[in-house]
Amino acid sequence: MNCEVICVGTELLLGDILNTNAQYLSRELAAMGVSQLRQSVIGDNPERLEAEIRSALERCDIIITSGGLGPTKDDLTKEVCCKALGVELELHEDILEGIRHFFEHRGSVMTENNRKQALIPKGGTVLNNSNGTAPGCVAEKNGKHIIMLPGPPRELVPMFENEVKPYLANFSQGVIFSRSVRLFGIGEAAMATEVEDLLDSANPTVAPYAKDFESLLRVTAKADSVEKAAEMCDETVATIKERLGKYIYGIDVESLQQRAVELLLEAGKTVAAAESCTGGFFAKRLTEIEGSSNVFECGMVTYSNEMKMRMLGVKKETLDKFTAVSEQTAAEMASRIRSFSGADIGIGITGFAGPGTDGTREAGLIYIGFDAEDRQEVYELKTGRTENSREYNRYAASSKALNMIIKYLQ
Amino acid sequence: MNCEVICVGTELLLGDILNTNAQYLSRELAAMGVSQLRQSVIGDNPERLEAEIRSALERCDIIITSGGLGPTKDDLTKEVCCKALGVELELHEDILEGIRHFFEHRGSVMTENNRKQALIPKGGTVLNNSNGTAPGCVAEKNGKHIIMLPGPPRELVPMFENEVKPYLANFSQGVIFSRSVRLFGIGEAAMATEVEDLLDSANPTVAPYAKDFESLLRVTAKADSVEKAAEMCDETVATIKERLGKYIYGIDVESLQQRAVELLLEAGKTVAAAESCTGGFFAKRLTEIEGSSNVFECGMVTYSNEMKMRMLGVKKETLDKFTAVSEQTAAEMASRIRSFSGADIGIGITGFAGPGTDGTREAGLIYIGFDAEDRQEVYELKTGRTENSREYNRYAASSKALNMIIKYLQ
Repeated sequence: MNCEVICVGTELLLGDILNTNAQYLSRELAAMGVSQLRQSVIGDNPERLEAEIRSALERCDIIITSGGLGPTKDDLTKEVCCKALGVELELHEDILEGIRHFFEHRGSVMTENNRKQALIPKGGTVLNNSNGTAPGCVAEKNGKHIIMLPGPPRELVPMFENEVKPYLANFSQGVIFSRSVRLFGIGEAAMATEVEDLLDSANPTVAPYAKDFESLLRVTAKADSVEKAAEMCDETVATIKERLGKYIYGIDVESLQQRAVELLLEAGKTVAAAESCTGGFFAKRLTEIEGSSNVFECGMVTYSNEMKMRMLGVKKETLDKFTAVSEQTAAEMASRIRSFSGADIGIGITGFAGPGTDGTREAGLIYIGFDAEDRQEVYELKTGRTENSREYNRYAASSKALNMIIKYLQ
Repeated sequence: MNCEVICVGTELLLGDILNTNAQYLSRELAAMGVSQLRQSVIGDNPERLEAEIRSALERCDIIITSGGLGPTKDDLTKEVCCKALGVELELHEDILEGIRHFFEHRGSVMTENNRKQALIPKGGTVLNNSNGTAPGCVAEKNGKHIIMLPGPPRELVPMFENEVKPYLANFSQGVIFSRSVRLFGIGEAAMATEVEDLLDSANPTVAPYAKDFESLLRVTAKADSVEKAAEMCDETVATIKERLGKYIYGIDVESLQQRAVELLLEAGKTVAAAESCTGGFFAKRLTEIEGSSNVFECGMVTYSNEMKMRMLGVKKETLDKFTAVSEQTAAEMASRIRSFSGADIGIGITGFAGPGTDGTREAGLIYIGFDAEDRQEVYELKTGRTENSREYNRYAASSKALNMIIKYLQ
């Protein structure tokens, strides 16, 4: 069963509104096993909307629209959809009564243009709106269904949950199940090369993504039951683990920081961090996670050499001999913050986030020190990004530090 | 000149990603006076993408795509667009060399599938990518233009700004000029009420936005010359200043942190921060800005009461009598970090980011202490957001702290 989503509203084409309805509907449809082939946005223009509806009707069985159900002249979704499908609209007195009551209840009088909202496609289905005056509806003819929903998310979401899901359940064959395999330390292209054969598989499908210095493989299976689909996914995930295991930091986890906090809590270990070029970015990311107060002892942001010495006790000789951006300084920052705080793991980050450097070395060179009782190491990160990449470099360095913690605990 | 935007990516149709590119492009196109008639999303499917491109070519002169420029098999936007337009792809050796260099620089080897990224439409235009390996490009034939941009927003946005805008300017009649008036401490609805008459103006247009605890008015004028358009904008900005001056923290600035660093540099003043619930978020934001090392002395993240006492020297009596989340603790954190560091301004932040609290008070209650020689104050922030709002509350508190610095220096 194929479906298309059409969002109606000039405000979307002007960029005044972020189209969160499209994402919500996409996610819900995927979870229900309804294939969404296409999505579009059309302004409040009857001719263009009609053309869109007519061509979508040729391609799919179910169209879901959002927006254009209100009382004003602009609101023309119902009229246009019914015209394209060849269905008439008829007035539902009980809905009109409900709208009139809604206004009376608020101490105001229903204006005439609100009558429009009580028009429902002949032979169609009314979708109740628990958060507004405009009900949704479904128009149906020759096996084609147009499901019309209001635009405001706080009306659309509950209507989809309570009214549309039960309606769609009648048509759905099978369920969809996904697993996300998250990788660190390998690029999208290299990752794809390792699993090239899997990318051609039809069920489960395997899709590669690159995002913010990380890679992701999404495995999605369709089957008769959740159990069967999950089993199919897990088989593919096992193959991926065999080939790319050393890069994987989590399955179905949200982020490096979530995984790091999870592992720290499991192990009953704590972390403290001394940051120079990342300026608190590592601490900020770790403390995003609920429960991080149990694993994060303290953080220091020591930008200047003076503060590295005064706050952390980094030795003057180290800074003089090797400079602030060096393996030695990173190692000392990590060990000093660990001993100062009494944490199990100390992290020290120092480098050139850019654009400024010392003139001899490049932006994107960052040293990340890791210090625990049974492991001391310093990673030399070279992002290779020297321009417009201050935030990227800082993000990459804090990601690497999080991954060092994950590797240590895994 | 009409345009359509086509976003390519199965992840969009699965709802894994919120389509912020569509909003960004819509807003920018509207500001440039380019009419966007339609927008669509297509999965990584060559047949459906080709059909979409062909039908869009019949309706408009310019197509802008996002996504599908990467190195993997899924990435087929260039191939499909060129096929639909009847243009060949050719290998650009210099681009290939750049990609190879990018990998060598990071100490890894370019895999064969990266070659794809160096293919450019014959007779077309290369759009440089300052934030990734895949360049964008424009294919052109018979007066039709397909502008192909990468999917990740941090690549797409700068490419649109630096490469696409000048390209599109060739087709646009007249020039567009915008000014952004940034406000803090007033909601979008209240702001809009104050300038309601201006919102109806056709040229300059005034558009209100709300974003991340801030508000923004974008003033956009169209005229024959930049000078004339700028003058028109400035007249409107002057009116806005008269009515909303006390909320405005900057005109044409990027962010609170940019404005704060700018003012600190001008005044030759320095800041230090002690953070509890924000966990380094304030320090992270301030150090995003180039040159912040000249104004940011140091930061401490003191999550536990013990660290508040040991690192900062907050008095045990204060914590016992008033608790860690109190006006008194925030004030002491601010004054202690200032005296410890020798900075001109000390910031202390403590509160309940959520979801956890002490059981008697609500998440979103955060105290922000400000300490300078001639001003000491504590702001009690109540965001009113108690659920799923940890990150929002942390962001809001760090924004308020930045705005307190701006207010002090302005």
